Amino acid sequence: MVRILIINGPNLNLLGTREQAVYGTQSFESFLPGLVQEYSQSVVFDYFQTNIEGEIIDKLHNAIAQADVVILNAGGYTHTSVAIADAISAIKLNGTPTIEVHISNILAREEFRHTSLIAPVCAGTITGFGLNSYKIAVQAALSL
Amino acid sequence: MVRILIINGPNLNLLGTREQAVYGTQSFESFLPGLVQEYSQSVVFDYFQTNIEGEIIDKLHNAIAQADVVILNAGGYTHTSVAIADAISAIKLNGTPTIEVHISNILAREEFRHTSLIAPVCAGTITGFGLNSYKIAVQAALSL
Amino acid sequence: MVRILIINGPNLNLLGTREQAVYGTQSFESFLPGLVQEYSQSVVFDYFQTNIEGEIIDKLHNAIAQADVVILNAGGYTHTSVAIADAISAIKLNGTPTIEVHISNILAREEFRHTSLIAPVCAGTITGFGLNSYKIAVQAALSL
Amino acid sequence: MVRILIINGPNLNLLGTREQAVYGTQSFESFLPGLVQEYSQSVVFDYFQTNIEGEIIDKLHNAIAQADVVILNAGGYTHTSVAIADAISAIKLNGTPTIEVHISNILAREEFRHTSLIAPVCAGTITGFGLNSYKIAVQAALSL
Amino acid sequence: MVRILIINGPNLNLLGTREQAVYGTQSFESFLPGLVQEYSQSVVFDYFQTNIEGEIIDKLHNAIAQADVVILNAGGYTHTSVAIADAISAIKLNGTPTIEVHISNILAREEFRHTSLIAPVCAGTITGFGLNSYKIAVQAALSL
Amino acid sequence: MVRILIINGPNLNLLGTREQAVYGTQSFESFLPGLVQEYSQSVVFDYFQTNIEGEIIDKLHNAIAQADVVILNAGGYTHTSVAIADAISAIKLNGTPTIEVHISNILAREEFRHTSLIAPVCAGTITGFGLNSYKIAVQAALSL
Amino acid sequence: MVRILIINGPNLNLLGTREQAVYGTQSFESFLPGLVQEYSQSVVFDYFQTNIEGEIIDKLHNAIAQADVVILNAGGYTHTSVAIADAISAIKLNGTPTIEVHISNILAREEFRHTSLIAPVCAGTITGFGLNSYKIAVQAALSL
Amino acid sequence: MVRILIINGPNLNLLGTREQAVYGTQSFESFLPGLVQEYSQSVVFDYFQTNIEGEIIDKLHNAIAQADVVILNAGGYTHTSVAIADAISAIKLNGTPTIEVHISNILAREEFRHTSLIAPVCAGTITGFGLNSYKIAVQAALSL
Amino acid sequence: MVRILIINGPNLNLLGTREQAVYGTQSFESFLPGLVQEYSQSVVFDYFQTNIEGEIIDKLHNAIAQADVVILNAGGYTHTSVAIADAISAIKLNGTPTIEVHISNILAREEFRHTSLIAPVCAGTITGFGLNSYKIAVQAALSL
Amino acid sequence: MVRILIINGPNLNLLGTREQAVYGTQSFESFLPGLVQEYSQSVVFDYFQTNIEGEIIDKLHNAIAQADVVILNAGGYTHTSVAIADAISAIKLNGTPTIEVHISNILAREEFRHTSLIAPVCAGTITGFGLNSYKIAVQAALSL
Amino acid sequence: MVRILIINGPNLNLLGTREQAVYGTQSFESFLPGLVQEYSQSVVFDYFQTNIEGEIIDKLHNAIAQADVVILNAGGYTHTSVAIADAISAIKLNGTPTIEVHISNILAREEFRHTSLIAPVCAGTITGFGLNSYKIAVQAALSL
Amino acid sequence: MVRILIINGPNLNLLGTREQAVYGTQSFESFLPGLVQEYSQSVVFDYFQTNIEGEIIDKLHNAIAQADVVILNAGGYTHTSVAIADAISAIKLNGTPTIEVHISNILAREEFRHTSLIAPVCAGTITGFGLNSYKIAVQAALSL
Repeated sequence: MVRILIINGPNLNLLGTREQAVYGTQSFESFLPGLVQEYSQSVVFDYFQTNIEGEIIDKLHNAIAQADVVILNAGGYTHTSVAIADAISAIKLNGTPTIEVHISNILAREEFRHTSLIAPVCAGTITGFGLNSYKIAVQAALSL
Repeated sequence: MVRILIINGPNLNLLGTREQAVYGTQSFESFLPGLVQEYSQSVVFDYFQTNIEGEIIDKLHNAIAQADVVILNAGGYTHTSVAIADAISAIKLNGTPTIEVHISNILAREEFRHTSLIAPVCAGTITGFGLNSYKIAVQAALSL
Repeated sequence: MVRILIINGPNLNLLGTREQAVYGTQSFESFLPGLVQEYSQSVVFDYFQTNIEGEIIDKLHNAIAQADVVILNAGGYTHTSVAIADAISAIKLNGTPTIEVHISNILAREEFRHTSLIAPVCAGTITGFGLNSYKIAVQAALSL
Repeated sequence: MVRILIINGPNLNLLGTREQAVYGTQSFESFLPGLVQEYSQSVVFDYFQTNIEGEIIDKLHNAIAQADVVILNAGGYTHTSVAIADAISAIKLNGTPTIEVHISNILAREEFRHTSLIAPVCAGTITGFGLNSYKIAVQAALSL
Repeated sequence: MVRILIINGPNLNLLGTREQAVYGTQSFESFLPGLVQEYSQSVVFDYFQTNIEGEIIDKLHNAIAQADVVILNAGGYTHTSVAIADAISAIKLNGTPTIEVHISNILAREEFRHTSLIAPVCAGTITGFGLNSYKIAVQAALSL
Repeated sequence: MVRILIINGPNLNLLGTREQAVYGTQSFESFLPGLVQEYSQSVVFDYFQTNIEGEIIDKLHNAIAQADVVILNAGGYTHTSVAIADAISAIKLNGTPTIEVHISNILAREEFRHTSLIAPVCAGTITGFGLNSYKIAVQAALSL
Repeated sequence: MVRILIINGPNLNLLGTREQAVYGTQSFESFLPGLVQEYSQSVVFDYFQTNIEGEIIDKLHNAIAQADVVILNAGGYTHTSVAIADAISAIKLNGTPTIEVHISNILAREEFRHTSLIAPVCAGTITGFGLNSYKIAVQAALSL
Repeated sequence: MVRILIINGPNLNLLGTREQAVYGTQSFESFLPGLVQEYSQSVVFDYFQTNIEGEIIDKLHNAIAQADVVILNAGGYTHTSVAIADAISAIKLNGTPTIEVHISNILAREEFRHTSLIAPVCAGTITGFGLNSYKIAVQAALSL
Repeated sequence: MVRILIINGPNLNLLGTREQAVYGTQSFESFLPGLVQEYSQSVVFDYFQTNIEGEIIDKLHNAIAQADVVILNAGGYTHTSVAIADAISAIKLNGTPTIEVHISNILAREEFRHTSLIAPVCAGTITGFGLNSYKIAVQAALSL
Repeated sequence: MVRILIINGPNLNLLGTREQAVYGTQSFESFLPGLVQEYSQSVVFDYFQTNIEGEIIDKLHNAIAQADVVILNAGGYTHTSVAIADAISAIKLNGTPTIEVHISNILAREEFRHTSLIAPVCAGTITGFGLNSYKIAVQAALSL
Repeated sequence: MVRILIINGPNLNLLGTREQAVYGTQSFESFLPGLVQEYSQSVVFDYFQTNIEGEIIDKLHNAIAQADVVILNAGGYTHTSVAIADAISAIKLNGTPTIEVHISNILAREEFRHTSLIAPVCAGTITGFGLNSYKIAVQAALSL
Repeated sequence: MVRILIINGPNLNLLGTREQAVYGTQSFESFLPGLVQEYSQSVVFDYFQTNIEGEIIDKLHNAIAQADVVILNAGGYTHTSVAIADAISAIKLNGTPTIEVHISNILAREEFRHTSLIAPVCAGTITGFGLNSYKIAVQAALSL
């Protein structure tokens, strides 16, 4: 069984209610069970959401011992957090790769969303497929 | 009665002791009761201060259910936080506008204070009138 | 009685007819009498509109003798006029502060509207509350 | 009959005497009668020249009532005037489009001439054909 | 008879089907016969479309011997091709000027469309008049 | 059956021989049959490789009639081609979305590879999973 | 007798009252008579002050016929006016050079004062000597 | 006895396991006792590590009452946190200086590590001496 | 015998007729035989010219098997082609180095010619010696 | 008697032979005696030329004891030398002001000549009057 | 005994007299003997000051044979000298590390002092502790 | 006999000992005799090395009388010295061209090495062929 930790960053707890034209109408909490079900034979999921940058870092550190792959949607911290990037880099060297995920096509939005500080240290990036981005990331995780 | 939530960000708990030439000698805690008193007929105030970026986001999310208008002085996060801007944008679409407030004239200070990531998603901005900026913001909130 | 001079710069004579989605449907000329009425006990208003940059400067110079506070919406000159900024700075040193006003949220519009050359020398700024920005500015003026 | 207002901005009153290698040897005043003659069946021309930015704005405002199309050579203000751009934008929404005209190829000259603040709000642009640019602009105006 | 070569660059073969809000609903192939007809007394037209940058250069080279004026809509290569600019410059010195044409107002669109590498070496530019831009360019060509 | 067109741009014909530390040791030609086999029940593949920018555009145009989804690895043109981006945008409006694929993590490489001109008009992007990026893109295509 | 036209731009009418630490305590009007007196044998002075950019241009145009040298302190327009630069350039070609003058050391002040659009087309520049800058400019004018 | 507060920011809890080529193989927890021992006659140490930006600010505020000097390694927040810089500035004015410390030579690493927002408000900076940077900082603290 | 492949990019087929002040009056076709003659004892030459970027890439790929050194004048593609740079890099790793050649001193010309995307992956660069640059490049090739 | 030290920096020893179109045909050595003669009643001159940056600094240091005013033409070091600027600043605080002089109008030349690192710390600047710039600077020195 | 070479660059010979608010009132010559005395048991000092960039390079070259560690305060050359950085890099590879020292906090001063070209090749940096920076650097040198 | 002056700038005296991976293991002093020998029939060599910028300038000035061509490797001054560029420009106008030489491929190294201030005024540039760059430059010199 592959252990996958999914971390959602700031404002993703509002999915389904927030800017539906951009993010769709489904919450992540209602999406996750289907994903768990689909991969119940091969994947053990852990899920964590926080709006606090440092708690994402704490959770990434824990992943060294507790996860084989991390799927991370860092939300707005994607564009500003050197500290999260450092954490991803640190756990990568300890054998736990991170896959960056975005629901919307961030390069088609405001210019400040065009820079990702975390992408260079992630194993790869999945962008723009709505909540399906998470499912595709799971498939990518299994291919690593 | 209009419900107004005032959120003060990092270092504003030091008002009155911090850089008095810039910020004045009165603390926000001693200023607030007079404001509450003056608008006791028309406004119910809620007040929150934190130095943690993510807790500002948490509080903004709560405002969807608990406030009609938010008055936000995001302090140093004003210039760096995409995540707070995303939260303001999310609750605006749910019907709760945010008014940005600054005590000092940030455009007359260091260049890194000239950019506000949150201003574009706020309803409006009040800058430069000392603690009176909050009072003016209340009047602006009532005019929305 | 406080003497307040309101100066409107280029294109503001078209308010109510120009880009109503951005600026609303009321002209300043129909808005002003209500404002004058509301503050008839405490404020003497002077009002001036021009499309010519140098005439704004002339009027600001006159304010040294004729006004206690200036409320200025410099329109498009906000972003390009060092000369108006110099005039504001000069009369400030002679004891007449200027409050910058904008009807729309200029930071949510085109990038060339994000720079204000006059903000650093104004006492403060009110942005984004429609024609109410002027009323809020009067209240700010009275708090100076 | 189509009403066309031609506005010439700063220094264009010197055409024919100013930098002949760039602008040619004919003044606009001697060029205009031929143009009026050629289109006497279909066009009523109005012509205005000023070196004052704000007077260009005044004249553009007047065009709402008095012209069907404006042909504008804003000279040096092309590269610096947000206020003229705002005026063009305002009258466009009132049904009067503006065509930007330049005698010389501004993109082949100094770098500060490469930016046109007014082009984005004009219907179209004609650049580089000498005084014939005005004639071509008339033809473009008739095609709108 | 004046020999005019019209060159259309990438994606212009899709005119009429591609982004109709921006480019209109008529294909260039259905527009051209009317233009040829209108100028049948004075102009011999040659027309060429390709999506390959280097074939535009080949065709421009041929124009030295075969055309008096080139009308060029280089599409997306307008903003990126030093090589096409060099070709235009080369044939200009051999006596064949090029007129740059754009259907839409490129300065009102995405920022990467604001730079034209070819404009500085063209005789002039016509922008924003839909397919009429080509007709206006023919008139400009005849005025050279 | 879903029709998927895979387009590989410049230098991808060298996969397996070129910079193996970055791109791996397998050629695309030896990878493709396995992919075709795996999805033989649900997908009809078409494959095209070229080093010529304009031929990618030609092929994208053809996709309007011949493919349901395009998977595109534009190689070095990713960072420089406005013309390919225009083609992707054109066929998207005709109902054929494009998925951008990269073998390596382009954001971890030279700075000129950090900008993608085509990403903003693609449906989504898959980056960094080696040749598996294509397989993941097929899964993403099926989820659209 | 050499005819020298001195033109002072925006806010220089406030000299002596405006920011005395920067500009000194003497008005230009009280300074000029001494200068006229000192050079009464060799120079005929004309003096003009305006806050309107376009009137500076008008006056420069007049200088073609009426002055041998222009001494110009364009104030805040120094940094923003392409149109004044064009006027200086035009009259230079007609034989009337302009000398740029500044009272304060503009390069030791705010960054937006470091750029002079007019310097490249002036004969020379005198900066930083207080009102003596004008006297030195007269001596420079006599040396041309 | 001098009271020194050492604050370590994000990811420094991983020292000794994280990127050993850059940061060495010793954890801070195993390094600290030797330092405490060495200065047991003259210094009382307090030590705090957190991954949360706001908790660094909280701790800095506490230092006003509880420390004479702060030694701060802000990790990734060094390059992005205006809010921490504001906290350092606030306690400096209350008499508690901060010394910035880095284990690696940050100017020899990625470009986003070249900017320190906190350095301008610190008393001084020690960079590049491994864990010895902390010991050197203690010596610097004693020299203040 | 050393096998040297000379590739000339866009517009170099016009040498001798194009901008003679910059490029001289001799065509490459008339220059080449002398070069072949001079090195007939030691070098086998292959020569290729194209205006199409992708054909330069095709030819570079062929060089893996057919040439020991490539001499490349990529013309205008020098400044814009990531794809050609990738091809040079790929064949370098397969043992075929490329020498960059320019006829004119590109750093003394327009600013957009100052950047070479291909120089970093070439073995070396020869710039500014007219057609002799090719001869010097042959000598450099023999020294590799 | 006022003691004036004139320092000429790199390449100014070639005046009269170097780029005569820009710098004129007279050497400084032949110009200086006339200047000394003209001011023999009021000024004692010292003159120094060097091509070595550090020797300019040495000489500036000496000026503290030996000169009342320094006239400096730093040549190419004007645009690159922080160290010379520091020296000027140091001797200014010791009571010896420096006047910056340039023979040509540096703002009308290459862009890298538009920045002067030394101007902000000089008393004033004289630019563009040929060798007369030195004479004008002497007059400015006497007015300090 | 450790051999330490201290090199002071431009203007540091003026310490104690130059800008005392920034640099203090003590000269380096009066500071050095105390330092030598304090470390007389463990360190042999060599000291060199010059205002000439190239002489700093010469001295650094000599350090290969004559010093174990170099302590360098490059003054104004810190921000502009690639050549000194190359020299530091060269001697580092020969086993002699350099420690960069600054008396003042250069990041709290003018922006052109924020870039250090030499820091990336030094072992470490000590900034902001006045003349004590040298003493701290000696301690750092002993820890290498 | 052609007189060639070879000037080597800062740190090139360390060739053979400095960063051998980049610069190779041979010193210039051991390389030069072979070069002199090879061209003993046609070239008289003069050789000069210095680490002092101004001495390079002095030597370039001397070249007017003493050399037909200069071969210059300006080392780190290549990227920062306007003064050396001015000297090259001056002697070029006196008939002595300069050829720029670099041992390594400077465009494949750090970004601050990508700009050459001297290239625009040199006759041509040879980069990247190790010490053979000097030999190739001699051949280029003979072709001038």
